Amino acid sequence: MRQLWRGAAIATMDGTSPWGWMADGALLAEDGRIVWVGPADAVPADARNDEVIDLHGGVLLPGLVDAHTHLVYGGDRAAEFERRLQGISYEQIAREGGGIRATVSATRSATDEDLLHGALRRARALRAEGVTTLEIKSGYGLTEADEARCLRVARAVGAATGQTVRTTALPAHALPPEYAGRADDYIDAVCTWLPRWQAEGLVDAVDAFCERIAFSPAQVERVFEVARALGLPVKLHAEQLSDSGGAALAARFGALSADHLEWLSDEGIAAMAAAGTVAVLLPGAFHFLRETKLPPIERLRAAGVPIAVATDHNPGSSPTLSPLLMIHLACTLLRLTPEEAVAGMTREGARALGLADRGTLQPGQRADLAHFDIDHPRTLAYAFGQRPTCRTWVAGRETA
Amino acid sequence: MRQLWRGAAIATMDGTSPWGWMADGALLAEDGRIVWVGPADAVPADARNDEVIDLHGGVLLPGLVDAHTHLVYGGDRAAEFERRLQGISYEQIAREGGGIRATVSATRSATDEDLLHGALRRARALRAEGVTTLEIKSGYGLTEADEARCLRVARAVGAATGQTVRTTALPAHALPPEYAGRADDYIDAVCTWLPRWQAEGLVDAVDAFCERIAFSPAQVERVFEVARALGLPVKLHAEQLSDSGGAALAARFGALSADHLEWLSDEGIAAMAAAGTVAVLLPGAFHFLRETKLPPIERLRAAGVPIAVATDHNPGSSPTLSPLLMIHLACTLLRLTPEEAVAGMTREGARALGLADRGTLQPGQRADLAHFDIDHPRTLAYAFGQRPTCRTWVAGRETA
Ligand SMILES: [Zn+2]
Ligand SMILES: [Zn+2]
Repeated sequence: MRQLWRGAAIATMDGTSPWGWMADGALLAEDGRIVWVGPADAVPADARNDEVIDLHGGVLLPGLVDAHTHLVYGGDRAAEFERRLQGISYEQIAREGGGIRATVSATRSATDEDLLHGALRRARALRAEGVTTLEIKSGYGLTEADEARCLRVARAVGAATGQTVRTTALPAHALPPEYAGRADDYIDAVCTWLPRWQAEGLVDAVDAFCERIAFSPAQVERVFEVARALGLPVKLHAEQLSDSGGAALAARFGALSADHLEWLSDEGIAAMAAAGTVAVLLPGAFHFLRETKLPPIERLRAAGVPIAVATDHNPGSSPTLSPLLMIHLACTLLRLTPEEAVAGMTREGARALGLADRGTLQPGQRADLAHFDIDHPRTLAYAFGQRPTCRTWVAGRETA
Repeated sequence: MRQLWRGAAIATMDGTSPWGWMADGALLAEDGRIVWVGPADAVPADARNDEVIDLHGGVLLPGLVDAHTHLVYGGDRAAEFERRLQGISYEQIAREGGGIRATVSATRSATDEDLLHGALRRARALRAEGVTTLEIKSGYGLTEADEARCLRVARAVGAATGQTVRTTALPAHALPPEYAGRADDYIDAVCTWLPRWQAEGLVDAVDAFCERIAFSPAQVERVFEVARALGLPVKLHAEQLSDSGGAALAARFGALSADHLEWLSDEGIAAMAAAGTVAVLLPGAFHFLRETKLPPIERLRAAGVPIAVATDHNPGSSPTLSPLLMIHLACTLLRLTPEEAVAGMTREGARALGLADRGTLQPGQRADLAHFDIDHPRTLAYAFGQRPTCRTWVAGRETA
């Protein structure tokens, strides 16, 4: 099966030239793998094409990769958002059982069907803006059974939408109410759950939330030790609200990524650079929480730390389903260039998930493609809240 | 022709109760006017309905009103946005002919068809998020012929999409290059253009940009005097970057609205309150320009000044086509409540255009409706960058 895409500009995002730009490009794939990319007037004439896809303008990009989402949960937090704006304090909302506890409670009481229905709707919304690969974390079940349920739902999402879903176990997301005051006991329990989930094939990576309001570096380290013993890659919510040395800890375990990073120190940057750990920036949460401390973009660049951008979709701090808006916010709020922001959701997003076979349009890569009805990919960063018509292909197969 | 909408929650936005909320509502219209709104179990049984629209859940709201847009122009400024993020200064870009001059030049050289094509695409994008009435300003032609061309295109947009378009003449938007150093001469010219545009039926209102970098209060006053003589309502871009007393000036002319208002003084607030002038807040420009000085929301509320919210769509400072994102940003950035933000794009948006026949769902109002596939309208403010399925009706007729 050989396919030819033509009639559009191409941005390969391969990092060797600005945008990997071809004003009139063509792309050939065989059995779902890219075999050739180049100018339209240089398409090899050596073989018959089984399918020719004429794109009638627009720009062909690598399918977007959303490397950080919490897509599976029950309920939403719209009423809490409204009450906060009416002047009700966080403390009052927490006293009433709001905040993350409300989501944990709604997730536990949701049926599998409810959870799948919500997660599917969200994954399809991401796909409508070009996402062909996404990561989904657990973290709102916080019991062995409920976390496993959420991971199974994440797997089912990929089966239903055709997107690649990478599952991440995040039981160390928050301390469940039944363990109040007993965080170490909870971590003990988590360490017994991971091998069983791994045995069931539910886990592609392990994550934790390292923060004063969540888990300590020592507790995270115990979770990471179990992951290492299981051969599972790790990643970490690190330095979002304070510097607790999480990024350096993650790097010590060869983490795929450290995420958020507003308070990242020079030591953390050096450790990430040495380990090849990707910095995943989450402008949606930065915006929604009205943060003011920027992640150290200049120092990350100087150290050569790869920078990815993701939605962090979750009901509490980033209830967005727009990867394109994240590309925009990465520019306006975090001051990435448009090319860095788009690379952050393609090439570097793939790297943050340890996927070497996608994120650029180069021979050998999987034919994961996103086509947008725009003149140039910088428009994705500029025209915020716009949603150009988008088609996507996964391994050469158009999704729908 | 009698129509019944049912099967959805209704938020009348009439201001008499929170959201004007009915969990299971119904709405009756006759010949495009609302004749009854109430709970589904109380629908009057006195008459036959020619059409029954079953909405299968979701929320019915007044059609959104976008009271401030610059929708007609040539080109875009995506490349300029990218260059800024690459570290090029405004001064450098201006020296190269960038900024508003680039848009004026692209607008002048665009054909009528180009201008209409772009404006139609943008108006339809607004409609996809519920906008049934919008204002469109001129202001990128800056010659008598080019401004008139843009106003004609604005009229054509309404004819093509079924939306109500209110046209606003904004020749005093920027000083065109051929008048450099001769702002008063340009205002002289503008004062001769307005009567001719008015005679051609192109103008519903007159606007100006009152700012140190644009036109002085004295120059704006001359434009407003002509508008008054022609019986045209006025509005003003005021106090966006500094306090030049524009809002008070506008109020003195009984302005429909004063827009932006970040630097609005107490005197300006008092004058607006006395005149019934609406404060139109533009969170898209606030965000895109990375402003930090908030408009005085508390004092506007205390003074009883009506607050509208609009997209300010334009290529230089607010290249967004998402009224729903503006509702979100009005909350997160400007700290409106979700109900205030949605009222700002319905009831108060209509008021800012002087339209008394829409913006709420009450008997006597035109049946301009927006139906969203959500549980509650506060979700429009919370779930940023999401785009729920939306249907719209103008005077009872579904748009498509
Ligand atoms: Zn997260
Ligand atoms: Zn404006």
